[in-house]
Amino acid sequence: MAAAGVRALGAKGPGWLRRGPWAPLAAGFCSRGPAEAERPEPGPRPTSARQRDGIRSIVLSNPKKRNALSLAMLKSLQKDILHEAESQDLKVIVISAEGPVFSSGHDLKELTDEQGPDYHAEVFRTCSEVMMMIQNHPVPVIAMVNGLATAAGCQLVASCDIAVASDKSSFATPGVNIGLFCSTPGVALGRAVPRKVALEMLFTGEAMSAQEALLHGLLSRVVPEERLEEETMRIARKVASLSRPVVSLGKAAFYRQLAQDLRTAYHLASQTMVDNLGLPDGQEGIKAFLQKRKPVWSH
Amino acid sequence: MAAAGVRALGAKGPGWLRRGPWAPLAAGFCSRGPAEAERPEPGPRPTSARQRDGIRSIVLSNPKKRNALSLAMLKSLQKDILHEAESQDLKVIVISAEGPVFSSGHDLKELTDEQGPDYHAEVFRTCSEVMMMIQNHPVPVIAMVNGLATAAGCQLVASCDIAVASDKSSFATPGVNIGLFCSTPGVALGRAVPRKVALEMLFTGEAMSAQEALLHGLLSRVVPEERLEEETMRIARKVASLSRPVVSLGKAAFYRQLAQDLRTAYHLASQTMVDNLGLPDGQEGIKAFLQKRKPVWSH
Amino acid sequence: MAAAGVRALGAKGPGWLRRGPWAPLAAGFCSRGPAEAERPEPGPRPTSARQRDGIRSIVLSNPKKRNALSLAMLKSLQKDILHEAESQDLKVIVISAEGPVFSSGHDLKELTDEQGPDYHAEVFRTCSEVMMMIQNHPVPVIAMVNGLATAAGCQLVASCDIAVASDKSSFATPGVNIGLFCSTPGVALGRAVPRKVALEMLFTGEAMSAQEALLHGLLSRVVPEERLEEETMRIARKVASLSRPVVSLGKAAFYRQLAQDLRTAYHLASQTMVDNLGLPDGQEGIKAFLQKRKPVWSH
Repeated sequence: MAAAGVRALGAKGPGWLRRGPWAPLAAGFCSRGPAEAERPEPGPRPTSARQRDGIRSIVLSNPKKRNALSLAMLKSLQKDILHEAESQDLKVIVISAEGPVFSSGHDLKELTDEQGPDYHAEVFRTCSEVMMMIQNHPVPVIAMVNGLATAAGCQLVASCDIAVASDKSSFATPGVNIGLFCSTPGVALGRAVPRKVALEMLFTGEAMSAQEALLHGLLSRVVPEERLEEETMRIARKVASLSRPVVSLGKAAFYRQLAQDLRTAYHLASQTMVDNLGLPDGQEGIKAFLQKRKPVWSH
Repeated sequence: MAAAGVRALGAKGPGWLRRGPWAPLAAGFCSRGPAEAERPEPGPRPTSARQRDGIRSIVLSNPKKRNALSLAMLKSLQKDILHEAESQDLKVIVISAEGPVFSSGHDLKELTDEQGPDYHAEVFRTCSEVMMMIQNHPVPVIAMVNGLATAAGCQLVASCDIAVASDKSSFATPGVNIGLFCSTPGVALGRAVPRKVALEMLFTGEAMSAQEALLHGLLSRVVPEERLEEETMRIARKVASLSRPVVSLGKAAFYRQLAQDLRTAYHLASQTMVDNLGLPDGQEGIKAFLQKRKPVWSH
Repeated sequence: MAAAGVRALGAKGPGWLRRGPWAPLAAGFCSRGPAEAERPEPGPRPTSARQRDGIRSIVLSNPKKRNALSLAMLKSLQKDILHEAESQDLKVIVISAEGPVFSSGHDLKELTDEQGPDYHAEVFRTCSEVMMMIQNHPVPVIAMVNGLATAAGCQLVASCDIAVASDKSSFATPGVNIGLFCSTPGVALGRAVPRKVALEMLFTGEAMSAQEALLHGLLSRVVPEERLEEETMRIARKVASLSRPVVSLGKAAFYRQLAQDLRTAYHLASQTMVDNLGLPDGQEGIKAFLQKRKPVWSH
């Protein structure tokens, strides 16, 4: 399965993944766990993952099906995100995709009457879990988008902590066109862009350009296609150079305080600052700064 | 009263309302209900409404008074919005205005000492009800703005689901200038734009251009004046072409989940997706897509 | 101490503070209160404050230390903000800074192991109190930024009601670089800009330009450096020309309703409108408008 990942990436994956050596992947990563052992997946895994220098790259690798977020794709993505999440070797995750479509959202064949409401519920529950897992993950998750992201694919971009896109990318929630309002994508979209912008997208299904997405907050950065990998990797390497426990503490605190009233938020965040100063890396960073030297993180 | 509506629109209403035939209006629409029968309004109704091909156009039609949101105007607007709201023939509402001022907000003559606090309270209660009714309405409500929208007029724009404006439009909350802080407009404005932008508008009363309003999220789209009707109608026709129960379900779910924490929001929205798939139009849309044909909505 | 303030401002403070006469400052303002009498501060106060025509200007006046928000600086700022806050002579506060750095955030020497967690907790508690006090203050507080604002300095900008900056200004939350995630700055930042923008700043520590800060809502206005004082003072004078009780009532209501669900928000804001109309200045403003004359506020 790791071989499948290499193959997929070797052929069409982002260029920076192809350059230079990668650290060997842990056994079972990118492949089977107990669940899969019982119910083996047909064909190659729909995602592939590699890790080097603290940066885990997860690639949606089913371009023939426009990287649809089928249940198999969602579970594969979930496994790649959760794999050794607590390892100190993991500093940041980058999610990208093969082919011209980042992701087209759910696989509609899984949402027909024949599958039934219980199966539908499993699809949406799994999808919501993946989206929330990104926020709850101890390291930052960056979306690197080069193409079209629609419906749950747009939701995936909106759910990442940081989103960088090429200027040819576009974003839409076109479910209304096929009678399935993008209600779950609306959860992430409505928290990323102004509500009038979200509602126009949801009610019309029309696509928004990368520049509009930047203007409205869905993206944090837009670059020309030829600079997408370079710019995304620059951010990823920057995050990977930082103290992991400090970043983890900060990420968790950010989302927790954001949902609170101002007084509670400051109470939580002030305690986080004190806790942060109690970490070895918190003191090392300040000492290094005052001594005008580079910090050496113990993580 | 329907005649008054036709007259007003024929003379100065948006051009697209004048073109071609309109479906006959239901009896009592644009005119009297039981309440009005008891307390007849002096003069013509301050709004007019027409409906065609699922699109209801409501026009603020008192340009001599800068379309002030007097109690009579608010009640007329309320009636036009609520009229047969559950009818399957209604798919989308467009609110526009006659004359160079979209709306100047409350009628200050209704807010003097002579009227007294009980009357004032009725004015603000009615206004708030109209604004909330827009969000709670089963179909999308689009503001089409061509000119100045101030105070409660700006609030009306901010309260619509989608807002399209001509590039000559502007927006302000100038109540502080006359000693009446725009606190109720601030409810809608503070939920549409960043708080610093809202506070600068509220504290200075200065106007914001259409481009700034787009930048900050008060509008979802800005176009040249000559394209305003065309562009707004394009969006309205798009919404009108969709399945009404799907759009209604999605609109209600969007606002409901937005007020919740992420986990609750996903729980609600996932259930909405399953419910949506249980609708006949949900299955018809997916089947049509997989069969590569146009869906036929049963609504 | 008032003399120290004059000296500091005379040398390097904003130009508009140097022009023309200033009303005499109340005794003890810019200087000592009971607390300071007991524990005298070494050296000149790190802030200076002047008041004229209803406008209080508070200047961070420790450019040699990049206007670090040391505990002494925070307490000095707190005192200047709270000084006679209820006085009808105070209409608006402008916070600016001497030198090329608006503020570099906390004084790292106060955050070392030697100081200990109790001292750290006092620093963050005081800082949070200052930030919340700005929102809870009866008059609008404007940040006038001309240079770099980082960490808690960026938080201070994000916490003001209105923020105007020169186009050479920039903003960053670089704590991660020294192992101290900007969790408390994230409270204010996360409420001012879209979360993806906030998280990219927090995770990378990279600076955002004034134009980007305007685009994303951290600032309400950006002007060329040579017009910064003129534009900020224009806004300040505008606010100072308004009725203080009306502005105070409106400011408090804005923040209160923003934290509520829509129905509660409208209930609160409608009551505020009725209360506002019950103020003498509420009725004076409306009468003056209807009589086409300038209002005369009684405050």
